[in-house]
Amino acid sequence: MKTLIKNVMILTMHGDQDPVNGDILIEGDTIIKLETSISDEVDVVIEGRGMLAMPGLINAHQHTPMSLLKGFSDDLKLMDWLEQKMLPAEANMTPEDIYWGAKLSMAEMIKSGTTAFADMYIHMNEIASAVMEVGMRASLSRGMVFLEDDGGRRLTEALDLVHQWNGKAEGRISTMLGPHSPYTCPPESLKRIADLADELKLPIHIHLAETVEEVIKIRDKYNMSPTEYLYHVGLFEKCHVLLAHGVHVTRKDIGRLKGMRGGISHNPVSNLKLGCGIAPISELINQGITVGLGTDGAGSATTIDMFEEIKAAAWLQKLDYGDPAKLPARQVLRMATSESAKLLNIDHQVGTIEIGKKADIILIDMKKAHLQPVHQIESLLAYSVNGGDVDTTIVNGKVLMQNRVLLTINEEELFEEVTTRAKRIVKGI
Amino acid sequence: MKTLIKNVMILTMHGDQDPVNGDILIEGDTIIKLETSISDEVDVVIEGRGMLAMPGLINAHQHTPMSLLKGFSDDLKLMDWLEQKMLPAEANMTPEDIYWGAKLSMAEMIKSGTTAFADMYIHMNEIASAVMEVGMRASLSRGMVFLEDDGGRRLTEALDLVHQWNGKAEGRISTMLGPHSPYTCPPESLKRIADLADELKLPIHIHLAETVEEVIKIRDKYNMSPTEYLYHVGLFEKCHVLLAHGVHVTRKDIGRLKGMRGGISHNPVSNLKLGCGIAPISELINQGITVGLGTDGAGSATTIDMFEEIKAAAWLQKLDYGDPAKLPARQVLRMATSESAKLLNIDHQVGTIEIGKKADIILIDMKKAHLQPVHQIESLLAYSVNGGDVDTTIVNGKVLMQNRVLLTINEEELFEEVTTRAKRIVKGI
Repeated sequence: MKTLIKNVMILTMHGDQDPVNGDILIEGDTIIKLETSISDEVDVVIEGRGMLAMPGLINAHQHTPMSLLKGFSDDLKLMDWLEQKMLPAEANMTPEDIYWGAKLSMAEMIKSGTTAFADMYIHMNEIASAVMEVGMRASLSRGMVFLEDDGGRRLTEALDLVHQWNGKAEGRISTMLGPHSPYTCPPESLKRIADLADELKLPIHIHLAETVEEVIKIRDKYNMSPTEYLYHVGLFEKCHVLLAHGVHVTRKDIGRLKGMRGGISHNPVSNLKLGCGIAPISELINQGITVGLGTDGAGSATTIDMFEEIKAAAWLQKLDYGDPAKLPARQVLRMATSESAKLLNIDHQVGTIEIGKKADIILIDMKKAHLQPVHQIESLLAYSVNGGDVDTTIVNGKVLMQNRVLLTINEEELFEEVTTRAKRIVKGI
Repeated sequence: MKTLIKNVMILTMHGDQDPVNGDILIEGDTIIKLETSISDEVDVVIEGRGMLAMPGLINAHQHTPMSLLKGFSDDLKLMDWLEQKMLPAEANMTPEDIYWGAKLSMAEMIKSGTTAFADMYIHMNEIASAVMEVGMRASLSRGMVFLEDDGGRRLTEALDLVHQWNGKAEGRISTMLGPHSPYTCPPESLKRIADLADELKLPIHIHLAETVEEVIKIRDKYNMSPTEYLYHVGLFEKCHVLLAHGVHVTRKDIGRLKGMRGGISHNPVSNLKLGCGIAPISELINQGITVGLGTDGAGSATTIDMFEEIKAAAWLQKLDYGDPAKLPARQVLRMATSESAKLLNIDHQVGTIEIGKKADIILIDMKKAHLQPVHQIESLLAYSVNGGDVDTTIVNGKVLMQNRVLLTINEEELFEEVTTRAKRIVKGI
């Protein structure tokens, strides 16, 4: 199966390459040619005139089923949001709800140009099935807390996920271990997870320093910062770690992170909406730490359009430093593509448009009033494009959306299912 | 001419009314009925099933022709942006360029649900012609600086604009006087403008306290803050004043603004992108000062999608106070509609959906993955909708966009014109 994208402006995101006009040839799941004009015989031709091809966006921190709770509990104090709304609603979710909620998030992601994501939740088997069916790329982890008990059941489920799904769905699914956070995982549990991750060669996905409350809690308990806590249990030494948030990391903390494998998923919209603060990502990047971009769950962020995160990330650094030159367009686009790919440990496969890489590509329709005239294409991508401008989404060589029509999800059925389920889940809350 | 919008969810933005399902009947330029089901004979029926009707958004601070410079000079230090890029490029603009740039902004505004705007620029005759032709509602002012000379020519042009265009285009065009800012207008010139505004019963549109540099400049010159400066020349006493930005207003300044006619246009995206800071709008609103929402010119904001401003405004207050309950969805939507209408002094005509008001209405297509399921419609509007979700835009009873097709602008011609002109304008800069 060969697919040819013709006459498209290509932003490879490889090094500092400028956008070029040309063709992209895909064979099976792989990009095999990038040339000014390709005349090979192919099965499918996608006309790209007036469009821009770039690597699919990679959402480095998600809780996909929370899309069922989108807009359910905005504008509330953090603890009210969590304790009075999110936790009771999540307790009402069945495995089937999880499946449909994950699928709803995937519909929104494909529609807004995201091709891969890192997910941490429960009932991961349902999410993996949805990923397989829908055609996205995902790195899945079973969230584990070790507070009420020794976490045994959760760990069993986490390992089941790994054994059943790692490398499955034509290689689109990978897995991680997901200890929830410093404040829900005592040292012994984290050491055990680190050993397991080391042994099984798996990355770890964990929340870090999202709120001031977390920092105080860990300081009270261990007399150190959340970052130092993870450092001292040996997490960074042993494993590739995907850290979500990192809002409250100090300069000293950043020193502890230097040289780590993995890095931080910056989730600015969620951090803004929950009033958490601004993660010091310019400083992290300066110190050589990989910083990718994610949305967090729709329960907090509401939108999971990565183009909103791109805007918010760039805006916040300019605000934080009072300097419009901070986090320029190109760099924030890199965060959403190649840097997030590194966090998911799939940068050998995706994150740039290069020969030999998997074909995870999006086409953006530039023939729009808010994207004309074109002075600097990266500026328009970072500061003006939104998810609705994505025309075509390709994952692993397969077209999941074309001309804004989803090809692997029945939207009508999806909307009916999630409407009924959402109503039931929040009833009485 | 009667137009009926059928079976639509209506968010009137009148007081605290909840969204209701029903029909909207428009006769000529006016909303004449709002009922559960209307069966009058009409000329045109717009089927609204699956859509939400709300008042058109009102952009309270624009420099429309700057859309020609969109994305031309992002990520630069403020003074480099202004002196090396914006000013030389603007110097290259012909009146015809101004016309096409304004039209490009109007295309983007109509496409993203904005129905009215306040504009300050030069060659306003060109902009007024474009407004008349395109069908939007606008409040126009000729920007006046009084630095190089006594501003005589500019004032003449400002008054020409008033005499030629105030109340024209079926009443869609109103005018203001536009002294540029405290730092470009000495006291005598501002006093003169205030007298004129008082005499002609015109509002004033002026920038205020956008940057720290401005605050220092005014402090050095007059030993007061920019707000105190405007207060002492008597602006607030005599006139309805539309203040753009107000990023650096202190608590003492807010005291000076109390009881003013008009209020502040908050332009968060531009303030973020230029690294200016966060305007204290929660405090302003608490003190009873009207705060509307605007985009500023596309030269700084890049996007002029008001739904981006809505998100940014709400996010920033939550961030600033570390409190997710600050500036809730309903309130920020009010800023973009009824409060901006007050700033433009057209709240007797537009800003809510009510019988007797002008029919400035937008329809948002809610049948989308990022807008399902619906728990709280206001949350989805504030935190997830983007301009691309607007299906239909109606101004003064006339449909300017339906099914996302512009009916009064030829987009193909527009894109060709602005591409050629933009290239010429920035050549060699």
